[in-house]
Amino acid sequence: MKSKINLLSAAICLSMASSVTLADELRDRATGMFEAIPTEAPVIEGNVLTPEKVELGAMLFFEPRLSSSHLISCNTCHNVGFGGDDYLPVSIGHGWQKGPRNAPTVFNAVFNAAQFWDGRAADLAEQAKGPVQAGVEMSSTPARVVDTLNSMPEYIDRFKASFPEQADPVSFDNMAVAIEAFEATLITPNSPFDLWLNGEDDALNAEQKEGLALFMDKGCAACHSGVNFGGQGYFPFGLITRPGADILPEGDRGRFEVTKTATDDYVFRAAPLRNIELTAPYFHSGAVWDLEEAVAVMGVAQLGAELNDNEVQKITAFLRTLTGDVPDVMYPKLPVSTKSTPRPVDMVGGDY
Amino acid sequence: MKSKINLLSAAICLSMASSVTLADELRDRATGMFEAIPTEAPVIEGNVLTPEKVELGAMLFFEPRLSSSHLISCNTCHNVGFGGDDYLPVSIGHGWQKGPRNAPTVFNAVFNAAQFWDGRAADLAEQAKGPVQAGVEMSSTPARVVDTLNSMPEYIDRFKASFPEQADPVSFDNMAVAIEAFEATLITPNSPFDLWLNGEDDALNAEQKEGLALFMDKGCAACHSGVNFGGQGYFPFGLITRPGADILPEGDRGRFEVTKTATDDYVFRAAPLRNIELTAPYFHSGAVWDLEEAVAVMGVAQLGAELNDNEVQKITAFLRTLTGDVPDVMYPKLPVSTKSTPRPVDMVGGDY
Repeated sequence: MKSKINLLSAAICLSMASSVTLADELRDRATGMFEAIPTEAPVIEGNVLTPEKVELGAMLFFEPRLSSSHLISCNTCHNVGFGGDDYLPVSIGHGWQKGPRNAPTVFNAVFNAAQFWDGRAADLAEQAKGPVQAGVEMSSTPARVVDTLNSMPEYIDRFKASFPEQADPVSFDNMAVAIEAFEATLITPNSPFDLWLNGEDDALNAEQKEGLALFMDKGCAACHSGVNFGGQGYFPFGLITRPGADILPEGDRGRFEVTKTATDDYVFRAAPLRNIELTAPYFHSGAVWDLEEAVAVMGVAQLGAELNDNEVQKITAFLRTLTGDVPDVMYPKLPVSTKSTPRPVDMVGGDY
Repeated sequence: MKSKINLLSAAICLSMASSVTLADELRDRATGMFEAIPTEAPVIEGNVLTPEKVELGAMLFFEPRLSSSHLISCNTCHNVGFGGDDYLPVSIGHGWQKGPRNAPTVFNAVFNAAQFWDGRAADLAEQAKGPVQAGVEMSSTPARVVDTLNSMPEYIDRFKASFPEQADPVSFDNMAVAIEAFEATLITPNSPFDLWLNGEDDALNAEQKEGLALFMDKGCAACHSGVNFGGQGYFPFGLITRPGADILPEGDRGRFEVTKTATDDYVFRAAPLRNIELTAPYFHSGAVWDLEEAVAVMGVAQLGAELNDNEVQKITAFLRTLTGDVPDVMYPKLPVSTKSTPRPVDMVGGDY
């Protein structure tokens, strides 16, 4: 009897050791490809995140007067209560116009190598200037923004405190730098995957670990790697098989529009997959609402692999472990308009 | 020498006593007409403000999925960072349609006798159901709202926790009750006027006190009294002299639309004046941006008095003392949509 127990114990120990080894192997492979979201905002070259600047940036992020209608702020499309985007296929902007592409999440965007689906902005500060001026988004101008900010003494004081070394700190560029500072704080640490990567074995269950292994084995991680599981490189959508026009509209040639280079035709940034379960619908077209379907589409388009239902199920179970702690955001109290604050413009060319 | 000093002291004492008496008189008169905003949310009959319900209400207040476009929430037009309204003459809603009247502030709205410019909703819960269904605002339906809320397990749990005595708590009515509970917390105590009313003599300066005296002497307080300086009664706009159609558009007959009674023609609720400096533009038409101009218009229209510039200046100096502490609001984290969450509707009749 004793020997039987001993044998059983030995078998259990062996099985545990083997499972520990397998877990370590999986973690070793994962550590080579991915990185956990830090718990503190990262350092941004040339943009020190002082409390004054981050607070100003929060105000500007929620400031509808950066739009000519006074209705639309950054938060309208990058809603911090909503996964950092708007849950819409493409955003609705000035005059209820639709934008051309799905709004990417602002959460963890600071970790992307460049911004926008085609990477046309080098960083978040450059990005922030785009929607403010886009006719289909906020439809304002740098001059109008500066006039608006200069019309409110509180903003002038806050720009001075945020850029103390500058003689004339209220500028369109500094608006964008402050917004970048705030956005750099919108990170989502402590996802189950990150906890597991940092050594907490039970943070992922067996199915999720199998999903992770498949994610690496099937080749997904070739494009979706690094701290953000994407956001680092550009790849043709339809590397193997081009999806239909419902998913890849012919009129949007992606990075080609930026570089005018034939090899960039229908090339887009590999989407960051952090908090992916919070950011439907998917793809630059926002054409697919269902995460399982998006994974299946990617298999065919990018890997030339028909993933079976079981594989899709496991991969999406894993992807749902990339949801971290959504940041706490206090709604900023915006200064009151003054007599010199530009009035809202209703439709293009029409004033109130 | 001694007697001179004594005389001087006596004179100073007399002058102080007289000024104290005047201050007390002014305060006595004011106390008879007005009331300070309390520092805690008021008790609402039939709606106990439990933490669970207030938190649910905050989520619903910021919930764009209560609109059929998934873009517009209560906070779009009643922006808590913006004086509790939208700084627009009339609000912009579904499909960029304009609403018929200026959005009233949500701050302290709980103290109004009834809601809307024509008082057609008895309380905030009844009010909250209006914009959700209005075609020009959120353009949804009670059935769609209930489907939306029932599609997310977190909302079901939160409705259960907020209405523990009810068998089927996820309802359109309870949505409104929870929003009312949250809105009841959006009060702005500690305005300079309230501090003065409560005994802090220096909270108002001489000009502001003269403005208060004028506000009472000229008759403004006949309609704008009570805790909210308005919001209690209905009066014809143009009691003495009807303003031009630029300020009082002919097509909007006010409370007449509700009661169909001839004496209610062009009758509107006396606007609450709390935080009035934060809530331009003014009147139900939102036609006047400048507080001084609004006061002058009121003088002619309601009192038949041409207020001179000095009087207008003093009255507005006083009105600016009605700005209290804007409430701290944490941006709520909204649950993720599920496969059964109704998809956003883009334009009326069109789906994504």
